[in-house]
Amino acid sequence: MTTHYKTHQALSASTLIDTPVKNRKGEDLGKIEELMIDLSNGRISYAVLSFGGFLGIGDKFFAIPWEALSVDTVDEKVILDVDQQKLENAPGFDKDNWPQTADTTWLVDVYKYYGYDPYWS
Amino acid sequence: MTTHYKTHQALSASTLIDTPVKNRKGEDLGKIEELMIDLSNGRISYAVLSFGGFLGIGDKFFAIPWEALSVDTVDEKVILDVDQQKLENAPGFDKDNWPQTADTTWLVDVYKYYGYDPYWS
Repeated sequence: MTTHYKTHQALSASTLIDTPVKNRKGEDLGKIEELMIDLSNGRISYAVLSFGGFLGIGDKFFAIPWEALSVDTVDEKVILDVDQQKLENAPGFDKDNWPQTADTTWLVDVYKYYGYDPYWS
Repeated sequence: MTTHYKTHQALSASTLIDTPVKNRKGEDLGKIEELMIDLSNGRISYAVLSFGGFLGIGDKFFAIPWEALSVDTVDEKVILDVDQQKLENAPGFDKDNWPQTADTTWLVDVYKYYGYDPYWS
């Protein structure tokens, strides 16, 4: 391993959207519904995870920091290493009422919930 | 203006895709065909610009660094401040033959063409 060589594997946003999301135990956590792009710097502000309605959550959507996700390009799935139970209490929003993206307080809470510092801090 | 307050306005990848691209003179430069996501860090590796076939370019696609783009959310367009002529010689690829995304040499040339340093350097 050298540190200066980086492959920078890239995938299109369209390919990532609708990809199934699982945890490391193989439990279904839903799918990538959307990628929100921070216009000021071209970073993913957060990914939007949608559930298939289990856990009684119904149509709630969840904001997930990109760092919490890893993409398995071989099996074409995204790994989010949390239990289904953790998602029950996770910061989410109604699919018909997306957050105001300028609300950084809300997004800070999202990052903290998954154990990450906001990328702009 | 304070430096610590940032709005971090975000737009969904799906909204950005298909948005028309113009230069500051208002000339049509095509549309956002795709956003390529660097899986290692959740940054936009490059945006893919497609033309409507003018300039004799046909189905060529162009890779554009995100920094070269600015999003006008009011008029729902993306600004790329280059002349149509500059695009004639810009690094591009055939729509049926996308670049190997691990080829950072190619991507360095893309960034240099528009006057930017690669985001990973």
